[in-house]
Order: sequence, then C-alpha cells, then structure tokens
Amino acid sequence: MVVEVRQRQADRSRGTRRKLMEATVDCLVERGWSGTTTILVAERAGVSRGAQLHHFRTRGELVAAAVEHLGAESVLVLKARAVGVGRSPVAVVGLIADFYASDLFSAALELWVAARTDPELKTIVLPLQTKIGRETHRLAVELLGADETRPGVREAVQITLDLVRGLALANQLADDRKRRAGIVRHWATMLEAALEES
Amino acid sequence: MVVEVRQRQADRSRGTRRKLMEATVDCLVERGWSGTTTILVAERAGVSRGAQLHHFRTRGELVAAAVEHLGAESVLVLKARAVGVGRSPVAVVGLIADFYASDLFSAALELWVAARTDPELKTIVLPLQTKIGRETHRLAVELLGADETRPGVREAVQITLDLVRGLALANQLADDRKRRAGIVRHWATMLEAALEES
Repeated sequence: MVVEVRQRQADRSRGTRRKLMEATVDCLVERGWSGTTTILVAERAGVSRGAQLHHFRTRGELVAAAVEHLGAESVLVLKARAVGVGRSPVAVVGLIADFYASDLFSAALELWVAARTDPELKTIVLPLQTKIGRETHRLAVELLGADETRPGVREAVQITLDLVRGLALANQLADDRKRRAGIVRHWATMLEAALEES
Repeated sequence: MVVEVRQRQADRSRGTRRKLMEATVDCLVERGWSGTTTILVAERAGVSRGAQLHHFRTRGELVAAAVEHLGAESVLVLKARAVGVGRSPVAVVGLIADFYASDLFSAALELWVAARTDPELKTIVLPLQTKIGRETHRLAVELLGADETRPGVREAVQITLDLVRGLALANQLADDRKRRAGIVRHWATMLEAALEES
C-alpha cells in the first residue's frame, strides 16, 4: 500500500517535471528566449509556482532540464520519422532537412543564439548541440548506408548536415519549403554521386 | 557662412546617427538582442540620451536604422574582401564562408532569431535577409564566373550559400574554423565539377 502510494507520487512527480520541460520548449517556440519566463512556463504547464519551485529552484535549472529534454526528444523524433524512409539520398536528405526546419529546431536555435552571449547557458547548450549533431550524423550515415572509410564520404555527410542547418535558418522567417525541396533534390543527386564514386 | 554652419551641423548629425547605429550592431554582437537596450547603445556611442531621442524616438526606429546600416555594411565588407580573391571556387567559397562566420553575421542572426517571434521586427528584418541573400548570390555568381543559364549552376550556387550559413551557425558557440576550412575545400571541389560539367 505504502509502496503503491510512493509509486504514484513518483509518477506524478515525473509527470510534473515533464510538463514543465515541455512547456519550456513550447514557450521557446512561441515567445523566444527572452519571452520564456518561469512564470509563463508554470502557467502554460498548469503547474503551481510552488510545485515548479519544488522541481526547479531557478530558471537555470529549468532550462538545463528542458535542454536535456529537447535533445532526447529531437533524437527520438528523428529516429521515429526515419523508420521506413528507405535509403535513397533524396528521401534521407529530405527527412533530415524537414526535421531541422521543425519547431524543435526553432527552440534549439533560440537557446543556441542566446548561449553565445550567456556563458552559463553556453555550458548547457554546447553539449546539446554536439549531441544532436553527432546523433544526426550517425543516423544519416546509417540511413544512407554510407561507408565513411571511403574517401570523401565523411565530408559529403558533413556537408549534408551543415546544408540542412543553413536551410533551417532560411525557414525561420518565411515558409521556405518549396525552395528547400529543390535544393534537397539537387544536393541529393550530388551526394549520390559522391557516395558511389568514392 | 550660414551655409557652412548648416553643413557642419548636418555632418555632425549624420555622424551621431552613424555612431548610434554602429553601437547598436556592437551591442548585438556583445550582448545579444535582449541585452541591446537604447540606454546601453547611447552610452556605448558616447551620445547623450537627449541627442539619441532626437534622432531615434523609439527602440524600433533605432533598430530599423541599424538593420539598414548592417545590411549596407555587410555588402560593402563582402565586396571589399572580394577584391583580388580570384576565381577559384575554393577561394570564393572560403571568402563567403569566412564572411558569414564574422561578427556582422552574429549581429544579423540575433535580429533574425528575435524577429521570428516579434512581428514588428520581422517586417524590418525580412527585407534585410532577402537583400543580403540576393547580393551575396549575385557576388558569388560574379566571382565564380558562373553561367546560371546552364543546368544545375544556379542550384549549386544556392547550395553554397545555404551551406555557408549552416557553417556560420556552427561557429556561434565554438571556433569552428578548422572544420569549416575542410568542408569549404571539399565543397569547392564538388562545386567546380558542377560548374564545369553543366
């Protein structure tokens, strides 16, 4: 009985933490870094200020947890979308380009840019950036069936990832989907040749 | 005599405006969008609050002028650096990649990201983004001696620009110069082939 109550409490506690982390990401997408206040996050999560402070004493603690959550979420979303996408470069590059053009990237970009001039945030965000970058690279290699021991293949995959991040940037202020699809198609052809010829 | 006095006043006025616009860009680079306050900008420019308010009544007016200034400055800097760079793709791509990895781009990126969640700022920044994009594209075509009427050439130039913006992003939190140089070299080889074979 006592064990069950504790279990329920632990579940509720995890649920509250999760709600607060998700609300932080939503706030970043809708209001940007400067508009993401702890008060707004608590409101959005439907969590009392007291409960919020119980879980995260400072904005820094909340943001650190949200960054972690965002990283894990991004990798999960990307892997889920990758199921059954096939090996053709155009499908794989399209998948990754669309992933980077999503709200999760907009949230990450808010943190990324704010971290440039905020040393405390930077210590949190830099590992996130590295982690998502590494995971995306690994997934791209796997999906493309690319052999990175062959000359030029590793660089071609890196170009793919830097390119999709550039495309994601172009998508922040306007819907760039149509142009992006054209660039993806064209790059996929070049990438295919690079993977074959090496 | 009266004409001379008026001329001096007009020069001084232009000088003050310019100082305020430059201080705004410097603030964006050092403090980010949220840290760029009109008070800080006036201090940095060595201009009294009264004089500042005479030139720019609101933060919005100041930012609009600074955005304009940033756009014009960027194009000038890029053109100046392009003198004598030669036509080899590796030199041209390296020039543009280094330009995008500079402080001017960090300032533009601050505005770019803030504009996503700030409709008023967006109306100012979107034309800047379009302008710099168009000018950079034109300059890249000119420097490369690329013939965009040939198939695939326009797309290859576009890939170059999206790629360098992605590389610039990777440079915001850490010095990515070494990796960037490798990517630039590799892409330049692919670009050269694309320009020749078409």
